[in-house]
Amino acid sequence: MKYEAVVEVLLKDGVSDPEGVAILDAVVSLGYGSVSKVASGKLFRLLLQAEDENSAADVVSEIAERLLSNPVLEDFRVRDLVSSNS
Amino acid sequence: MKYEAVVEVLLKDGVSDPEGVAILDAVVSLGYGSVSKVASGKLFRLLLQAEDENSAADVVSEIAERLLSNPVLEDFRVRDLVSSNS
Repeated sequence: MKYEAVVEVLLKDGVSDPEGVAILDAVVSLGYGSVSKVASGKLFRLLLQAEDENSAADVVSEIAERLLSNPVLEDFRVRDLVSSNS
Repeated sequence: MKYEAVVEVLLKDGVSDPEGVAILDAVVSLGYGSVSKVASGKLFRLLLQAEDENSAADVVSEIAERLLSNPVLEDFRVRDLVSSNS
């Protein structure tokens, strides 16, 4: 069966986020002073074949851990795992 | 009131995604032949003050359109807009 999942990767708390800081500066300079923090991260959408939802989740988590994120600096989250007809 | 929101930015369908292709190659070479597609994107988490949820959503959408995404190549989606105590 075909599954689709989203992997979110964000920096761990306390890890410096120069991109987020730069974006915050730009946002404020555009006049959005109400914004106090911007954290930047990565997003991946995967399409895969799997026996069932659990094995799809296992594979995606393994890929996220081994390839899509740096376990020292980043946390990842797998969400929106759904069977897909595309 | 303080709000937190997530902005997802992904390439529009049909726009080439060299990073996604490169990751797919790496994923398959690691032995995950069940994966048929990887799409890469960006993720931002914003913290902001706003009168209410609607005005928070408006501000975040405006920032996403003006700064966080390229309307020609990318689509964005605002989600997980919640009042925040952080």
